[in-house]
Amino acid sequence: MTTPHNAPALSDATDNACPLCAAQGETVLWADDFCRVIAADDADYPGFCRVILWRHVREMSDLSPEEQTRLMRVVFAVESVLRRHSDADKINLASFGNQVPHLHWHVIPRWRDDRHFPDSIWTAPRRSGELRTRRVPAAEALRSLLAIELTAD
Amino acid sequence: MTTPHNAPALSDATDNACPLCAAQGETVLWADDFCRVIAADDADYPGFCRVILWRHVREMSDLSPEEQTRLMRVVFAVESVLRRHSDADKINLASFGNQVPHLHWHVIPRWRDDRHFPDSIWTAPRRSGELRTRRVPAAEALRSLLAIELTAD
Repeated sequence: MTTPHNAPALSDATDNACPLCAAQGETVLWADDFCRVIAADDADYPGFCRVILWRHVREMSDLSPEEQTRLMRVVFAVESVLRRHSDADKINLASFGNQVPHLHWHVIPRWRDDRHFPDSIWTAPRRSGELRTRRVPAAEALRSLLAIELTAD
Repeated sequence: MTTPHNAPALSDATDNACPLCAAQGETVLWADDFCRVIAADDADYPGFCRVILWRHVREMSDLSPEEQTRLMRVVFAVESVLRRHSDADKINLASFGNQVPHLHWHVIPRWRDDRHFPDSIWTAPRRSGELRTRRVPAAEALRSLLAIELTAD
């Protein structure tokens, strides 16, 4: 999709070689001038979202306490929406950045019968990828739910 | 080790079958009445810490915003100490709880030549476990550094 209208202008805090510094070909579900939420589009994990800081920052401890709280509020809002509106059994949260050292959070709905449960989704799969029916809001519904969740306070 | 002196009394928020509801056989590095930091004691990942809530709570979104911030402050303090006092190339953060649905965070120092880099530590290893020399504070030093870090403000 095109860059969301509220994406900040590219600045010194942008690394031209970084694939997360611009929103290219992403399904953006929510964004402000600080971060964006995108659909991970993983067939095994419908509802899997990523929260990506716009600035090219490496670690959470590079942010001020206020910025840390601001970013985590979005991560936890995604978690809340997924818990309330899907039949996921658990939510997993992770921030690695080993391959792309640009702050981003994985918010992953998990099911007891998913490919890797109870292991992390980065382990070897335990069972086939045959997709059972999962109750998860589609992208358009997630957009509406996140807009409500993130303007609630 | 024995239960830290500032561990809260076991309460209704305790699940007797949960291995994280009590600190048994753990190397506790820091604790208050809300959470504790322990050494994960993983030979491949010296400095690997876990931040464990005392209460038996499942997800971050079960906490109030103030509690979320309080817990993450401890997670980010561990990250800060590891960044400042080790030669790790990256820090990884993760909260899964698929096996033990009691809130706990993994704070994992990573090195470019560690067993799994740049993959997560839960993937199949890419190289042997032969341990290179890592500069990481020992448990006693981590205790002192966390005490300073977490009383700084």
